[in-house]
Amino acid sequence: MVNEEKIDKETAIMRIAPEQIDQLLHPTFDADELKKHEAIAKGLPASPGAACGEIVFSADDAATAKEAGKKVVLVREETSPEDLAGMVAAEGILTARGGMTSHAAVVARGMGKCCVAGCHAITVYEDEKCMEIAGVKYHEGDIISINGTDGNVYAAEIATKAPELSGNFGTIMKWADEIRTIGVRTNADNPRDAKQAVAFGAEGIGLCRTEHMFFEEERIPKIRRMILADTEEERREALAGLLPYQKGDFKGLYETMQGKPVTIRLLDPPLHEFLPKNEEDMKELSEQFNIPLEKIKAKTIELHEFNPMLGHRGCRLAVTYPEIAEMQTEAIITAALEVKKETGIDIKPEIMVPLVGIPNELKNVKKTIEETAERCFEEAGERLNYMVGTMIEIPRAALVADEIAEDAEFFSFGTNDLTQMGFGFSRDDTGKIIREYVEKGVLEEDPFQTLDQHGIGKLVKMAVNDGRKTRPNIKLGICGEHGGNPKTIDFCHRVGLNYVSCSPFRVPIARLAAAQAAIRNK
Amino acid sequence: MVNEEKIDKETAIMRIAPEQIDQLLHPTFDADELKKHEAIAKGLPASPGAACGEIVFSADDAATAKEAGKKVVLVREETSPEDLAGMVAAEGILTARGGMTSHAAVVARGMGKCCVAGCHAITVYEDEKCMEIAGVKYHEGDIISINGTDGNVYAAEIATKAPELSGNFGTIMKWADEIRTIGVRTNADNPRDAKQAVAFGAEGIGLCRTEHMFFEEERIPKIRRMILADTEEERREALAGLLPYQKGDFKGLYETMQGKPVTIRLLDPPLHEFLPKNEEDMKELSEQFNIPLEKIKAKTIELHEFNPMLGHRGCRLAVTYPEIAEMQTEAIITAALEVKKETGIDIKPEIMVPLVGIPNELKNVKKTIEETAERCFEEAGERLNYMVGTMIEIPRAALVADEIAEDAEFFSFGTNDLTQMGFGFSRDDTGKIIREYVEKGVLEEDPFQTLDQHGIGKLVKMAVNDGRKTRPNIKLGICGEHGGNPKTIDFCHRVGLNYVSCSPFRVPIARLAAAQAAIRNK
Repeated sequence: MVNEEKIDKETAIMRIAPEQIDQLLHPTFDADELKKHEAIAKGLPASPGAACGEIVFSADDAATAKEAGKKVVLVREETSPEDLAGMVAAEGILTARGGMTSHAAVVARGMGKCCVAGCHAITVYEDEKCMEIAGVKYHEGDIISINGTDGNVYAAEIATKAPELSGNFGTIMKWADEIRTIGVRTNADNPRDAKQAVAFGAEGIGLCRTEHMFFEEERIPKIRRMILADTEEERREALAGLLPYQKGDFKGLYETMQGKPVTIRLLDPPLHEFLPKNEEDMKELSEQFNIPLEKIKAKTIELHEFNPMLGHRGCRLAVTYPEIAEMQTEAIITAALEVKKETGIDIKPEIMVPLVGIPNELKNVKKTIEETAERCFEEAGERLNYMVGTMIEIPRAALVADEIAEDAEFFSFGTNDLTQMGFGFSRDDTGKIIREYVEKGVLEEDPFQTLDQHGIGKLVKMAVNDGRKTRPNIKLGICGEHGGNPKTIDFCHRVGLNYVSCSPFRVPIARLAAAQAAIRNK
Repeated sequence: MVNEEKIDKETAIMRIAPEQIDQLLHPTFDADELKKHEAIAKGLPASPGAACGEIVFSADDAATAKEAGKKVVLVREETSPEDLAGMVAAEGILTARGGMTSHAAVVARGMGKCCVAGCHAITVYEDEKCMEIAGVKYHEGDIISINGTDGNVYAAEIATKAPELSGNFGTIMKWADEIRTIGVRTNADNPRDAKQAVAFGAEGIGLCRTEHMFFEEERIPKIRRMILADTEEERREALAGLLPYQKGDFKGLYETMQGKPVTIRLLDPPLHEFLPKNEEDMKELSEQFNIPLEKIKAKTIELHEFNPMLGHRGCRLAVTYPEIAEMQTEAIITAALEVKKETGIDIKPEIMVPLVGIPNELKNVKKTIEETAERCFEEAGERLNYMVGTMIEIPRAALVADEIAEDAEFFSFGTNDLTQMGFGFSRDDTGKIIREYVEKGVLEEDPFQTLDQHGIGKLVKMAVNDGRKTRPNIKLGICGEHGGNPKTIDFCHRVGLNYVSCSPFRVPIARLAAAQAAIRNK
């Protein structure tokens, strides 16, 4: 219609509901590959896309497998709200019961995740961790592929193909980019996701979570060794073993991003998250490192926290164990120096300190970062520019943002945690309460889906204004899931953030929503 | 000197360090009683006062016993920061090692708790839960008495006598009351504490925690029955069993307070806190109620929370289970009606809704309260005035205080939780981090000791201003431990709170600190 001059670009942009785009953005099976396989069952095409991975039968197993770097398909009789974390972790969801508006179907569509629902040919034996289709049993760990676009289920590994944006879709996105004034970055911590996001139009990485890198099979023993260390020396030795991996990770990201900004967040979760949870794994660890089992158990007890969300994590780790921040800084800086040397691309890493609530925390960690960077420059005989900034995710950080901005060159709003602490809602625990609140009209919307502009948004606005007062050119962004939510993007545009950052598959949605925000608030 | 007209009252008041008073405020042994006993050992008089109770050998046991309504003396080889919660729970602390500046001594003095330290005659066998003095073994549960003023230890139950304020001390306090403009209330949930506080000059109860009443031996089975109920009907039946107890509690408080204001907070902790923790107790419960053990275990798992601080507690319980708030309201109102009838004293209960972060939460619970109160008035054929207000303890509550004030007749700042959520510091987990921060200069002071005026104080000020904008005559107070801290009281005076509320033994300190604040900020 624009080509026929019936409507203008802005009108066209405003006519598209951002969430509609979602359907165009999902991976599909490679057509040639698909021909080689026959479906073993067919269910309802509940949410588009293609997924392939090991079968798991519980949300917990899905989350654990994901942490271990595995791709899984979550198979359930039916899903319930308690399965949410597992659904997030899985590549796709397959249910034996339920229709197009079942929990699995609705939630999967909401998160843009492939789902085949109501596949009645399946009998699920959750306790035995297996399922049966036409007399054949499939166990946990077996590979299946599911097609959310036609409902087919395959007992095979079928390669998936990332979607490509082209034609009219590409044109619309181009218009959106012309109109929008707020940047769109992505949350990615590996080259694959980063590449996908760039293909979708991401202009940088707004959040690279470094802890995901520690969970990989070869690395987890090293971080465990570090946690179990008795002395700083032992800790440094274990960290030295992690350094090459981290450096490799960052080089991969820099190369993929080709000079686009990359924000890397220092280690965030509490250390106990890395320790084994059950006796068997503890025994294995004990043998692996020749450390008494009792000591491992004692460490687990020592690190136990009643409220880990409010515990020893984020920059608090870097204050207590500066050697962790040193290793990460060294990896970030030397990787950048090497990529610059190898490719000629000028890399300007943005080092992000998480969970700052006290200006001195940032000062303390910044000192560690700067000293380490200087050492790296001296050793390399070469320098580069980098930035140090912080997450604003603790309510107090928003209250003293003017002081934090003295040391922070950028703020990235971690609205997940800001919502958790601002509302006093643990996301892991209050899903049920929030649903009840929405049903009873106590809350209009789930504040983890759409930012609560009225309350939490007030903290964001304060931090934006106070931060800019101290440092007029401070760079302001939002990472975390709100960054891909159209209503929240409208808010971010209005309060004057420089960019939003969201998961790769939401980047086009964010580009469109950003353009709509620009038009709406002209 | 004032009597000699050398200095005026204000100068006299300003010359006293509030913390000095602390030493005059502790219980002592009844002198006649004391003569009947001989000490079994003598240690250092590390912190004044007298204590008597069952021996416990770990902080956890102290806390558990306290919850069960027992009085205990915590006996340790030495205490460490991990023992803090146990020290708070115990009547007194006895250590075998350490001097006048040992951890036990310093901390006990800080909290005004009786402590005998470095009692070398004692050998502590923590694993066996016993101690040996001169060849005699004393086990967990045995009664001892300790005198923190002279260091004596007795293997007997010796009655303690509450301190009395009189003479010069009384005169100074009278002057303080003439000068101060901010009220001083107390936190108390039983007539004994309330009486003590009134003797110390408390002008009302600022915080009555109703959950303490549920932990008593006769009542805990009833609340457990309620939690395990499958239907609202079963829940109501169990609650009906608790009603007479709660009503009795409140009558006792009203009678003691003789018409002084009493603020009663509705049930606050998450329900899992009331369930048994170990298998043995679960079995007992299973037999008691003829409920399958598996069901009790399943309930425990269902109620488990990863971050209970941010979980299903406070007013969220009242929204989900209005019948709990109904029972408590009925107890509050009918107790007041009965005391009014019996004594002629006009009681005006202040019903406090905890953990409000969303204005609709208060609206929802207020409706339950009002409907229940109306029903009680109709049944009694008589009415009385009561108030409904809220804690401001969730950061978001401070951000939307203008709206909350539409329904709240008073705000009580719960600065403990406001500090926990505002800083993202779980008090149970971050003691070590905060000490490290103070040592490294990241923090000037422990924000749980003295309110962080700069950050958390900003939230308090916002709520004060916005609350008064909506409701000019809104009553504003602070409960929680900051309410007895002199620096915090100065802040409360400056921001214009109507009262502070603190533990009974800190009431005189608060009166003096309030007078000093009035003089300092004239």
